[in-house]
Amino acid sequence: MGMIGGGRGAFIGAVHRMAAGLDGRIELVCGAFSSDPVRSRESGADWFLPPGHCYGDWREMIEKEAARPAGERMDFVTIVTPNHLHFPVAKHALEHGFHVVCDKPATFDLAEAKELQRIVARTGLLYALTHNYTGYPLVKEARALVASGKLGRIRKVVVEYPQGWLSTRLEETGQKQAAWRADPAKSGAAGCFGDVGTHAENLAEYVTGLRIRELAADLSSFVPGRRLDDDGNVLLRFEGGAKGVLHASQISAGEENNLNLRVYGELGGLEWRQQEPNTLVMKWLDRPAEVLRAGQGYLGGSATAATRLPAGHPEGFLEAFANVYRNFAAHVGARLEGREPAPGDPAMDYPKIADGVRGMAFIEAVVASSRANAAWTVPDA
Amino acid sequence: MGMIGGGRGAFIGAVHRMAAGLDGRIELVCGAFSSDPVRSRESGADWFLPPGHCYGDWREMIEKEAARPAGERMDFVTIVTPNHLHFPVAKHALEHGFHVVCDKPATFDLAEAKELQRIVARTGLLYALTHNYTGYPLVKEARALVASGKLGRIRKVVVEYPQGWLSTRLEETGQKQAAWRADPAKSGAAGCFGDVGTHAENLAEYVTGLRIRELAADLSSFVPGRRLDDDGNVLLRFEGGAKGVLHASQISAGEENNLNLRVYGELGGLEWRQQEPNTLVMKWLDRPAEVLRAGQGYLGGSATAATRLPAGHPEGFLEAFANVYRNFAAHVGARLEGREPAPGDPAMDYPKIADGVRGMAFIEAVVASSRANAAWTVPDA
Amino acid sequence: MGMIGGGRGAFIGAVHRMAAGLDGRIELVCGAFSSDPVRSRESGADWFLPPGHCYGDWREMIEKEAARPAGERMDFVTIVTPNHLHFPVAKHALEHGFHVVCDKPATFDLAEAKELQRIVARTGLLYALTHNYTGYPLVKEARALVASGKLGRIRKVVVEYPQGWLSTRLEETGQKQAAWRADPAKSGAAGCFGDVGTHAENLAEYVTGLRIRELAADLSSFVPGRRLDDDGNVLLRFEGGAKGVLHASQISAGEENNLNLRVYGELGGLEWRQQEPNTLVMKWLDRPAEVLRAGQGYLGGSATAATRLPAGHPEGFLEAFANVYRNFAAHVGARLEGREPAPGDPAMDYPKIADGVRGMAFIEAVVASSRANAAWTVPDA
Amino acid sequence: MGMIGGGRGAFIGAVHRMAAGLDGRIELVCGAFSSDPVRSRESGADWFLPPGHCYGDWREMIEKEAARPAGERMDFVTIVTPNHLHFPVAKHALEHGFHVVCDKPATFDLAEAKELQRIVARTGLLYALTHNYTGYPLVKEARALVASGKLGRIRKVVVEYPQGWLSTRLEETGQKQAAWRADPAKSGAAGCFGDVGTHAENLAEYVTGLRIRELAADLSSFVPGRRLDDDGNVLLRFEGGAKGVLHASQISAGEENNLNLRVYGELGGLEWRQQEPNTLVMKWLDRPAEVLRAGQGYLGGSATAATRLPAGHPEGFLEAFANVYRNFAAHVGARLEGREPAPGDPAMDYPKIADGVRGMAFIEAVVASSRANAAWTVPDA
Repeated sequence: MGMIGGGRGAFIGAVHRMAAGLDGRIELVCGAFSSDPVRSRESGADWFLPPGHCYGDWREMIEKEAARPAGERMDFVTIVTPNHLHFPVAKHALEHGFHVVCDKPATFDLAEAKELQRIVARTGLLYALTHNYTGYPLVKEARALVASGKLGRIRKVVVEYPQGWLSTRLEETGQKQAAWRADPAKSGAAGCFGDVGTHAENLAEYVTGLRIRELAADLSSFVPGRRLDDDGNVLLRFEGGAKGVLHASQISAGEENNLNLRVYGELGGLEWRQQEPNTLVMKWLDRPAEVLRAGQGYLGGSATAATRLPAGHPEGFLEAFANVYRNFAAHVGARLEGREPAPGDPAMDYPKIADGVRGMAFIEAVVASSRANAAWTVPDA
Repeated sequence: MGMIGGGRGAFIGAVHRMAAGLDGRIELVCGAFSSDPVRSRESGADWFLPPGHCYGDWREMIEKEAARPAGERMDFVTIVTPNHLHFPVAKHALEHGFHVVCDKPATFDLAEAKELQRIVARTGLLYALTHNYTGYPLVKEARALVASGKLGRIRKVVVEYPQGWLSTRLEETGQKQAAWRADPAKSGAAGCFGDVGTHAENLAEYVTGLRIRELAADLSSFVPGRRLDDDGNVLLRFEGGAKGVLHASQISAGEENNLNLRVYGELGGLEWRQQEPNTLVMKWLDRPAEVLRAGQGYLGGSATAATRLPAGHPEGFLEAFANVYRNFAAHVGARLEGREPAPGDPAMDYPKIADGVRGMAFIEAVVASSRANAAWTVPDA
Repeated sequence: MGMIGGGRGAFIGAVHRMAAGLDGRIELVCGAFSSDPVRSRESGADWFLPPGHCYGDWREMIEKEAARPAGERMDFVTIVTPNHLHFPVAKHALEHGFHVVCDKPATFDLAEAKELQRIVARTGLLYALTHNYTGYPLVKEARALVASGKLGRIRKVVVEYPQGWLSTRLEETGQKQAAWRADPAKSGAAGCFGDVGTHAENLAEYVTGLRIRELAADLSSFVPGRRLDDDGNVLLRFEGGAKGVLHASQISAGEENNLNLRVYGELGGLEWRQQEPNTLVMKWLDRPAEVLRAGQGYLGGSATAATRLPAGHPEGFLEAFANVYRNFAAHVGARLEGREPAPGDPAMDYPKIADGVRGMAFIEAVVASSRANAAWTVPDA
Repeated sequence: MGMIGGGRGAFIGAVHRMAAGLDGRIELVCGAFSSDPVRSRESGADWFLPPGHCYGDWREMIEKEAARPAGERMDFVTIVTPNHLHFPVAKHALEHGFHVVCDKPATFDLAEAKELQRIVARTGLLYALTHNYTGYPLVKEARALVASGKLGRIRKVVVEYPQGWLSTRLEETGQKQAAWRADPAKSGAAGCFGDVGTHAENLAEYVTGLRIRELAADLSSFVPGRRLDDDGNVLLRFEGGAKGVLHASQISAGEENNLNLRVYGELGGLEWRQQEPNTLVMKWLDRPAEVLRAGQGYLGGSATAATRLPAGHPEGFLEAFANVYRNFAAHVGARLEGREPAPGDPAMDYPKIADGVRGMAFIEAVVASSRANAAWTVPDA
């Protein structure tokens, strides 16, 4: 694995490194951790990389790695830069023959995402988007339960992603994570919805297997001076007739990272909360609610494959994140052996460029709807 | 207290009787429990009323009670009929000099509510609407905390009222509660939103002290054959700039009576859930969340006045309902003594006709907005 | 109902009045609320009792009521005095032909309890002990589930009753509830264990249907100057081989009234917590835990008979307390009609003098064991 | 790091590898994963170890590694064998100059533990015992809060470790984890108490800073045919006067890994539960309970140093386990640089041989007390 972005002090770069390394099957072999070559080398040294494998320019890294003999170059590249660089880096990597892992959202805008989808299709290479929350075992179980029909036809979906960390104008204080997220030139058309709203959209579609047909969104920027949305409420209509609500926020004071989902069908409902991710509550019309727990023998195959520990030994954010890498790496490994996993194989269960296109279409639809005073808008995915 | 409606087997009539009687200060003295005089007398006998105080016609009851000498007639009438009778009964009672307690929603439609508001004003009599959820001590505490400014200016409100009991077409099975609620001739323009959506609206406005300025609603009738809404999602914009989401449902399979509210301001947030009503969580920007509990000495005056037991001795739905009666009865008692309580007196803290008008305006706005494909609509209160 | 004790400002008297009156079937008709006749009359006036039905002496009340014609006198007497008066009052009432309801613990000491048991047997009258926590619907469901064998043979029982309100020397501040509880002359041999430990014992035995065979107790008085225990930890061995732990405390700072019970059998376990009494969790060896909820149709007969409201409408402490009265009143009513309910009839499901004897034997065994440095001690019930 | 035990399919070996590797600072360089050299090599190959670094005999590994030049040999050895091998392996490693990490309990019996303590002292090498639950950030916060005096003098401690996985005779089914734990020759004098009871003891002493002065234990073997305890209840008396209860179980049907701790002092209490490890509840005498959350800025230094992610991004069992390794590795690193960390340095915050001796003394005291019918017994640490 080679990494682009994610130098010393970067949050998401560290997450990707821990997640990728958790199962002992992926090794960081090179990086363009910073556009400053010295800083990039210093970051690389923190992770025991020799200076020759640390680059100050991502183009240079991709090109030099491509020039190394097979077996000595990285097998794939991971992109953990601000959003505006996702597309050019991914394009360059794919065009030089490298599989790609990229942090979400996929690109800066929808046009780029569609172009990237074409490049992925053309090159035939693998692309994973780290919608990490779908890596939780009980999210996979929820998806399997909906697909099994146990809830009946889905009627209602409520998905929320409240945070409170941007309740004040943190982006003006030098806080690095806040600064680029609040900058339209780096973040894209949306702030809160590019950062967390798209996770909510992805989670809802992943679990229900339903696509958002149209939406009506009301975005706000509550903190004075902020240029992008920091909160928004969205009405949802899904293909097939289900309806729902999605709301996301970075000004819900006192909330941490409270992504959660409820789905109701004709026969039952389910509830999952990211802050206690090892529990999935199933609710039924006329019998007691059931509390499903990660690691238990009664769970299905996809949840079990995503679990490392026995029940009662909590797995968290990093382990879920690592599941995206684990499945992606299994897919890469199969390719290295000249195989392609079967469609239901866990190795195929990671977010791909199609999810990225849907995410960007969602973001653009939300922004467009909000600008039209919450007019119903169809995501153009 | 005289009761209209609420004969044997009626759910809400029994609730009103237990709630009114809880503090030992209100006595049921007469009733028109059924339009069938025999059945009315039988119901009355269950509660030890002599036959002469049981009526088969509510007009007759109001008129005969009015004809009794002072001290022998009822002090006020409680209306627990289906919605379409709320207005004519209340009007008749007020015009015969009786204070009124009425179950929600106030009337069948907004025009009636406004007319009733005029009658209340004209007669100078007291009118209480049993938006019982505002009777919970921690709802009162939440209101006081918002009013104190501790959360700062309010930015976001999320209020939910999911139930699942109408997930199937229960109204066709002879279930009495379901049957009239699903009948537009008895229920009014809305089903789920007349029944529970209006509680959510009332709770949000009571706690925040803010009024809904406009809303965009998407109602559904998921159960085939149902004539009124059984689910709906609403975007909210409040006076003063706060925004929010309200959703209510009677087809959220497996949910019981899960009314809940979250409010976020610049400095903190709060969360309250009706199914665990003795807990109020306060969330803060940079210190630990606090768990406030009913009965504790640190609560404010309105919460304390609404509490009968020490902390840890759970009070529930009936006790909260009884608080509406307790405060109303204190107001009636003051009137009997020729006094009027001061504005901040607990005796004034019960929902009044203005809340009823707002509730009906909310219901009509929701229905109108939904018919206009979720167009922004201003409640006409 | 006539009441002895429980004048103005008394906590438990008010609870008994609200609980007895909740279902509209029991009326307070007389009382000896205080040994001061003026104060007794003032208290009675609060509840609309005429002066002639308010007594300053409990002997006088019992005797005068007994002298009234049938139909004009009270049907039973309720005793809500400090512990040392339970026995003489109950004895006098029974010997004058009155059924008795008494707050727990039954008596001042075990000898009195056994004597009272003989008096009850001899008079053939009814006696209810308000171990109110067994009145919760889900406690009844738990008992039924254990009895059904669904958990298999019981192996382990954990029952806790932590409170924190006596963490400081409250009894020296004039706080009335604390003062008599801390006084051995009024409270009996135990403080915390007479007050709340005995509730824990009763709950564990009620739910499991098992009797404590022997125990080893370590009591403490943590607050300097306190004469009775304010905390204690007890090892339990039950008849039939189950084992367990009981601990109770009034110095567990920050705890309110956190009575809770866990029972584990060969096949599953259950968990119930008084502060969220409408939920019962059932745990299973190899399937998801189930969350049973009050008011749901899947509950058994005894739970359903103890429920007034639909699921999701929380019932609390008063409603559970009222269930003791409701069942007792049904038994009294049957007696008035010359009937005796069948053994499984809900009218028989209230704590009786045998529970009182067991409770006093438990208290004396705990105190004796603790004095013997936690030697195993057999309750002499 | 070299590993002894923990070959393919072993649970705890995999945990140690993931935990040690999480921060990218510890590399597995050799192992004696099995006493079968072929199997050991196969296991090693799974983790990319060359055959020459995979041994079939732990003595051979220690000796051959010791013979390698500095810089090429392992820096420390990790022992993840069944209990009976802990002592001989640790002894051999220390005597060949290697620092040691060992799974708990430290040894097979107390005599070995004391002997090991002498060897550690004599060699001056580092020894870490993976009482991993003390690695959770909020356990460290709890310890810091107690030490700060905010709870006042500690009065009561309740610590529980219920599991249910040995509710049936799993050890007879070929389940490897169950088999050796149930075998006195491999497990030691205790079953459940050697496995999980000692974690509970360690947690209670770590958080409170208090030592158990004496205990009275009642152990059971509920499952027919089982030779070691599968459940036990213990009364605790701490130095300084606090008292408490410890119970542990592997037959609490339906429980997963429900280690939890409550501590009460004069001024407040705290509660922590391993299955939701990112939350610590602080309870106070006269103000609302506070919910402390991992990753928040208000936490103290030791909790913060043990956290990798922002609040709301759950960290779990592996991350806590990794904290033992992280601190131990920092200590080893300091030694390699010729430094010794200061006493309060996080690098010193990991369980050491003294904890191991206390744990073994606890186990032996529990067994001895139970054999003497719960006689008070002083742990001989």
